[in-house]
Amino acid sequence: MNAVNRQMTLRRYPDGMPKESDFEVVMAALPEVGEGEVLCRAYYLTVDPYIRVHVSPSMSVGYAPTTPLGWPIPGEAILQVVQSRHPGFKDGEFVAGFGGWQDYCALPGDSLRKVDARLAPLTAHLGSLGMPGLTAYVGMTKLAEAEAGQTVFVSAALGGVGAVAGQLARLKGCRVVGVSSSAEKCRYAVEALGYDACLDRTQPDFAARVAAACPEGIDVDFENAGGEVFWAAFDHMKPYGRMLICGLVADYNDSSPPPGPDRSPNLLRMIALKRLIVKGVMVADYWDLRPRFLEEVGGLIRDGRLVSREYVVDGIENAGRAMIDMLSGRNFGKTVVRIADPPVV
Amino acid sequence: MNAVNRQMTLRRYPDGMPKESDFEVVMAALPEVGEGEVLCRAYYLTVDPYIRVHVSPSMSVGYAPTTPLGWPIPGEAILQVVQSRHPGFKDGEFVAGFGGWQDYCALPGDSLRKVDARLAPLTAHLGSLGMPGLTAYVGMTKLAEAEAGQTVFVSAALGGVGAVAGQLARLKGCRVVGVSSSAEKCRYAVEALGYDACLDRTQPDFAARVAAACPEGIDVDFENAGGEVFWAAFDHMKPYGRMLICGLVADYNDSSPPPGPDRSPNLLRMIALKRLIVKGVMVADYWDLRPRFLEEVGGLIRDGRLVSREYVVDGIENAGRAMIDMLSGRNFGKTVVRIADPPVV
Repeated sequence: MNAVNRQMTLRRYPDGMPKESDFEVVMAALPEVGEGEVLCRAYYLTVDPYIRVHVSPSMSVGYAPTTPLGWPIPGEAILQVVQSRHPGFKDGEFVAGFGGWQDYCALPGDSLRKVDARLAPLTAHLGSLGMPGLTAYVGMTKLAEAEAGQTVFVSAALGGVGAVAGQLARLKGCRVVGVSSSAEKCRYAVEALGYDACLDRTQPDFAARVAAACPEGIDVDFENAGGEVFWAAFDHMKPYGRMLICGLVADYNDSSPPPGPDRSPNLLRMIALKRLIVKGVMVADYWDLRPRFLEEVGGLIRDGRLVSREYVVDGIENAGRAMIDMLSGRNFGKTVVRIADPPVV
Repeated sequence: MNAVNRQMTLRRYPDGMPKESDFEVVMAALPEVGEGEVLCRAYYLTVDPYIRVHVSPSMSVGYAPTTPLGWPIPGEAILQVVQSRHPGFKDGEFVAGFGGWQDYCALPGDSLRKVDARLAPLTAHLGSLGMPGLTAYVGMTKLAEAEAGQTVFVSAALGGVGAVAGQLARLKGCRVVGVSSSAEKCRYAVEALGYDACLDRTQPDFAARVAAACPEGIDVDFENAGGEVFWAAFDHMKPYGRMLICGLVADYNDSSPPPGPDRSPNLLRMIALKRLIVKGVMVADYWDLRPRFLEEVGGLIRDGRLVSREYVVDGIENAGRAMIDMLSGRNFGKTVVRIADPPVV
């Protein structure tokens, strides 16, 4: 093949909110395909908040290593098999894998999962049926201990994780209060996703609205936002409440700790006084749940009981802008980038 | 009876570390004894870190209401029944109850628990066999999920809670690393309480010593200290580690949040990345465990397998100083104040 492999790479590490000039499309050769590997063509790239952590040297930890400059931005993608050197995959099959932001990738077959395009549109396999959806499923089924009638608070209510978490909570019979970043998105959350209420975090009286929307307090905070949204939830947690720390988008652009006062002593004190349980949510611990998740959530989507909405940006050259828009709340639904038209299936 | 009831009261709310002049002994009349109540004489008063929270208006929450000025400082005491108007209690019996810092109190009989002076010295019923011991028992048996071979980190290693938590962890087969505030206390923790190691938090290289003493990281942090001791533990938590937030003595004197930087975003981020579970420990949720606790821990004390050491200060007029010493780490063991000599039993 003499195709060109476009890669969206980091030119420099973003300082604060990323800028489009931090990114750069470069042309690369197609990768070699080793034994057991599969060469894939990418159609859709995921743009998730956690990617911001990967492109920040100051946040590097073992679980989220920093992407080297000049390398494609990491992340899951919807792919089609071009050349398989793995017995489990045939040319032409749709798969999802950690190909990163590039046209072509060669991945170990064992790291790929097949994508059933009849179950839901390809884009949904990066969102409600992908890693974000599984994250929400893990949180709501394994960690939240939410019961019918309890109040579940979901920040980034329309996002890849939030939209599924909120809808699963609703289906469980919980009262679900979401947070988003515009009146239009909040309306969508209530009307299309079935949130009982959704609050616009850009309104100056946001904290008061949280109090009004959660008159009995919050039993479960599914935290995707961080920052002031987190604190508004924290201040309204009920005794014995669970806080699932999944995403902290508001803080991802900070390369050093924000100025004081130091709110951590108050955080710890209220955890003790209210007997809160604060837990980290990390989907990587629960890959074994994927079959059950695909069956359950896939069934809900097929039956129209759970809505999956993706915000599709066109062109690999716009992937950096898509990430900036997502971090700024200018997206509407779970962000994906279409870098080539997939064949009709 | 024409006895005088001495009460150790608050003259003013302490600003930062309490001063002896914040306290004042006043003379009061003996309380009336209502139907169902029991008039008691106090011999030993407990001095626990949580009392600092009760004497701070800025920390008042429903669970820890602020003590009004002029009222006796709250807290459990070892008492003897003087006059009973409750069928469950006879004159002369030893009981424990929330009498506060005063010679005489009238308490509902239903709020009292009998004290078995043959099981352990009376003072131990405020410490290892009292609320602090039960707190440690709840933490280690219900919340820590500690397994043999895991590393358990216990701050305030000699305190009422810490000494029992550390010893229960040792008896479970854990590697137990304590923290205290002098070389002498650390030696005692290792030699008498059986800690595998104990670190002096006043040493400048404390954080490095934590790293050296916990080469594989910390599975369970039984947090009684807060402040820099907390952060040293936090930085060494293993993935999936549990942090039991029980006491935050280092922060109790702060009437407003400390200056920045704000460490709370980092706290939340690492909770997510390491999948930590942070839980509040509150003994009040577990009164029903008391019989099992008394049998188990009482048996361990009787058999010499668990050591109870109290730091006894004489005189109600010195109770304020005893509290200051405890908050400053000048005590050696669990602090109690003897305000009258109990009859020999």
